[in-house]
Amino acid sequence: MRNSIKLHEKRKKKEFQYQPISLKDILREMKQKIDLMFDLAYSAIKFGSKEIADETTKIEKRIHELTFLLNLQITQTQTGGFKEAKRLEPIVVMGYSIDKVSDALADIARVVYINSDISDFTQLFWDEVPEPIVKINVREDCKLIGMNRQDVHFRSQHGVDLIAIKRNDNWLFDRNNIIEKGDILIIKGELEPIKELKKLTLDEEEISFQ
Amino acid sequence: MRNSIKLHEKRKKKEFQYQPISLKDILREMKQKIDLMFDLAYSAIKFGSKEIADETTKIEKRIHELTFLLNLQITQTQTGGFKEAKRLEPIVVMGYSIDKVSDALADIARVVYINSDISDFTQLFWDEVPEPIVKINVREDCKLIGMNRQDVHFRSQHGVDLIAIKRNDNWLFDRNNIIEKGDILIIKGELEPIKELKKLTLDEEEISFQ
Repeated sequence: MRNSIKLHEKRKKKEFQYQPISLKDILREMKQKIDLMFDLAYSAIKFGSKEIADETTKIEKRIHELTFLLNLQITQTQTGGFKEAKRLEPIVVMGYSIDKVSDALADIARVVYINSDISDFTQLFWDEVPEPIVKINVREDCKLIGMNRQDVHFRSQHGVDLIAIKRNDNWLFDRNNIIEKGDILIIKGELEPIKELKKLTLDEEEISFQ
Repeated sequence: MRNSIKLHEKRKKKEFQYQPISLKDILREMKQKIDLMFDLAYSAIKFGSKEIADETTKIEKRIHELTFLLNLQITQTQTGGFKEAKRLEPIVVMGYSIDKVSDALADIARVVYINSDISDFTQLFWDEVPEPIVKINVREDCKLIGMNRQDVHFRSQHGVDLIAIKRNDNWLFDRNNIIEKGDILIIKGELEPIKELKKLTLDEEEISFQ
């Protein structure tokens, strides 16, 4: 097992430090990451963004790592016996399946590398889904300027999710990014909360699904 | 192509009538179905329900059928040339990838066939996600009795999604099911809207993530 970790390290040219991490924490992170990937994959094709596609690829790699950790953890802590195996086998299957979902979602996102202008097809998703993904412009005097995601509490206070921030031509995905004037916030949510947020951010443009 | 459809028919012992359907309609249905599958897959492991798992398998088959129709449609309408191919190739990849996602989601749901009591692992998902899946009990005098999903407008009026109805020991997934006294509604949504809905339905129990 140690050797295969080292090989993995070399190939990726990246430090992979094995640290014990609980099954709960692994599964929780997998669930959070796969939810985020779902939104990112659709955002990538919606906005024709290779940067968002690259971000999904990054998460795909992390989920692959988590699947490996999950199996390592289960093999290590397995006390043996049929009963224990029956208890843990579903978790192994879940791990591999989430890994497979993440592979496929990254494939979806990467179609923008074939053709980044497929919005005439993907456009049709957005006017019928309960929580569409829309842009919000951060104007001068917007109350969110200077705050990061955690400060704003997008979901609990405003009923929406912040998927990413577009600044100039860069996409920012880090949870600690501070919102600046001129940013475009990529938001997922129902229409009413989005309208409210647009008022708050002083963005008076019509909601656009493009 | 015709032969393979007939073979398919025989194997499935089910009528498969090819009808022209637009790419837009195919993609829209795929998107709707895959979103629903995501919720159902997690509901299956959350409630240890083989019936919900079977429902995800049904949707998996429909998505497989849609992927087939998508490729048939593209091959039929393809006018030839590199430019056209470049325009349509991403859609083919998307179709196959959504098919792959649905396979994996059905695999996740089917782990309840290995062990339907994995709630000690899956439990941990629910207290941290923005829109948890919870149960609502339909009491006598509940205003929703006699209405179906469309009548209630769960998402647009109440900010939540109805995933399924549990009646006695049966799970109902049909969009036309009429809500009855004694039903348990499986709802996805934020805590505030869920609390509101619980008031409306006269369900005074604490919100439970079990």
